[in-house]
Amino acid sequence: MSLLVVGSVAFDEVETPFGKCEKMLGGSGSHISISASYFTDARVVAVVGGDFGAAEQKVFDSHGVDITDLERIPEGRTFRWRGRYDYDLNVAHTLDTQLNVFADFKPKLSEAAKKSRLLFLGNIQPDLQREVREQVPGAELVALDTMNLWIDIARESLQRTIEVVDVMMINDAEARQVTELPNLIKAARKILSWGPKALVVKRGEYGAALFTRESYFAIPAYPLESVFDPTGAGDTFAGGFMGYLDSQEEIDDAAMRRAMIFGSVMASFNVEEFGTDRVSRLTQIEINERFRAFKQMTHFEEIPFEKAVHASK
Amino acid sequence: MSLLVVGSVAFDEVETPFGKCEKMLGGSGSHISISASYFTDARVVAVVGGDFGAAEQKVFDSHGVDITDLERIPEGRTFRWRGRYDYDLNVAHTLDTQLNVFADFKPKLSEAAKKSRLLFLGNIQPDLQREVREQVPGAELVALDTMNLWIDIARESLQRTIEVVDVMMINDAEARQVTELPNLIKAARKILSWGPKALVVKRGEYGAALFTRESYFAIPAYPLESVFDPTGAGDTFAGGFMGYLDSQEEIDDAAMRRAMIFGSVMASFNVEEFGTDRVSRLTQIEINERFRAFKQMTHFEEIPFEKAVHASK
Repeated sequence: MSLLVVGSVAFDEVETPFGKCEKMLGGSGSHISISASYFTDARVVAVVGGDFGAAEQKVFDSHGVDITDLERIPEGRTFRWRGRYDYDLNVAHTLDTQLNVFADFKPKLSEAAKKSRLLFLGNIQPDLQREVREQVPGAELVALDTMNLWIDIARESLQRTIEVVDVMMINDAEARQVTELPNLIKAARKILSWGPKALVVKRGEYGAALFTRESYFAIPAYPLESVFDPTGAGDTFAGGFMGYLDSQEEIDDAAMRRAMIFGSVMASFNVEEFGTDRVSRLTQIEINERFRAFKQMTHFEEIPFEKAVHASK
Repeated sequence: MSLLVVGSVAFDEVETPFGKCEKMLGGSGSHISISASYFTDARVVAVVGGDFGAAEQKVFDSHGVDITDLERIPEGRTFRWRGRYDYDLNVAHTLDTQLNVFADFKPKLSEAAKKSRLLFLGNIQPDLQREVREQVPGAELVALDTMNLWIDIARESLQRTIEVVDVMMINDAEARQVTELPNLIKAARKILSWGPKALVVKRGEYGAALFTRESYFAIPAYPLESVFDPTGAGDTFAGGFMGYLDSQEEIDDAAMRRAMIFGSVMASFNVEEFGTDRVSRLTQIEINERFRAFKQMTHFEEIPFEKAVHASK
């Protein structure tokens, strides 16, 4: 079992109403691979600069994330993102983005990476995503994330990338935007008609939904009294989802549904502290406890109603 | 088993992007009691004018809704609401409200009504809700709906009404507004601290959640490719919820969870056509089919993850 993740490794500076953190490990590649590491062997393809040091390397190492394919450009600086959240933690306000070494990122895959069983294409330029996808032709399942930027400036390329993946994973605003359909169910049907076998729609505090051609599955978010820092929640979801799938011999609808829960579990931990702080020190017991909580909060007995008093006359 | 519903009986004029309807039976009392009639014996307390005719009476009669307590003022006109929805069907734009006979509504309960097992206080002025509540002291369960208007102009009275009911049923914006807390989980905890044993939060296209002191339950909405007219969806939910509860001998957490599903089922039918058109001609088979669909779309196997590869070190 092996999961390859392509994405960014970044330093984030985040301010929320509850605190401030100046240089924390972030980026989709970090969040996804660390989250996935609880379930399977994860490997990350990304690029970093000379400011990527022993402390950051240790986070990956301690989780067994393989960073052989992490390109290092000693004379460059790592991708940096600075953002702020107000009390509506659903909306990130970007204050500054410095692409740095990420601007010329050309993912180079080792031979081992090319043999990965599962591939997750994190949110990068869709041409690059497709190049990576082509280098892993034997992948059993390929999933894709994207963002509004690529829908705006690279729609045609994104469309071609969507056509060659198995699972698309986006938020509901992006699903509506990419299809130009206000109704999410119609939007999902359209995306599935482009090629993917499954669509995962992330809905923030409202949970997540899984659409396939045959089935629909929807879950609430884990109820949290306080969200400390939502940065990376979507990527952490993706890591739990893909990591769990890779741990399963058979990737069927039932496994995908459980993967949705494990993704939600991991995302719910992510938002409790800054960056990867909380997810970095999880235990299997904590993960399973929250998985069971999802069962408790969605369970009802299937007893149809049998004594209709006044049916339509 | 008997359910008493206090609310409005109205004529609605609604325009949506999909059509227009000029004089349809509406109001919370109508939607709730007709929806509930599929599960139990419902009785409605409301007031109508001389324009309430045989056609409207027939809708109640054909569903066995008891309108003995429907006050008639022949020289007056029935409450009228005119509204419009744009493509965002979550937002109703009120174009005109004529309270008419509803302006001086003083609910008068018959002796039979006062003996009802369950009581639903539809969205009316909170002083009136409390007066009704006091007239049904033996009710096994009393539930309450309200709206932003009463939070704005009658907060203190509303608060006192909340203290004397068992279940509060509102949408998430109202839950945040009445508690002045942006986090829904905290808002729910605060509302429960005021007295109610349960809080039902309606979230439109995102489903609904049930909070009690011991338990949390959340469900998605039924996935609809087109919503025709959302008017009365919340009331139709309330009708399914209360009607189902009244059909059950024991009103425990498990029954409340199933009631959440039946409420959602009824609301999903309501939005498919104008006014009460779709809900008026349902069959028990259709209701149970959609109930089973909710089970399918929320079910996952409870198999904890057992082979964590790299737990925190």
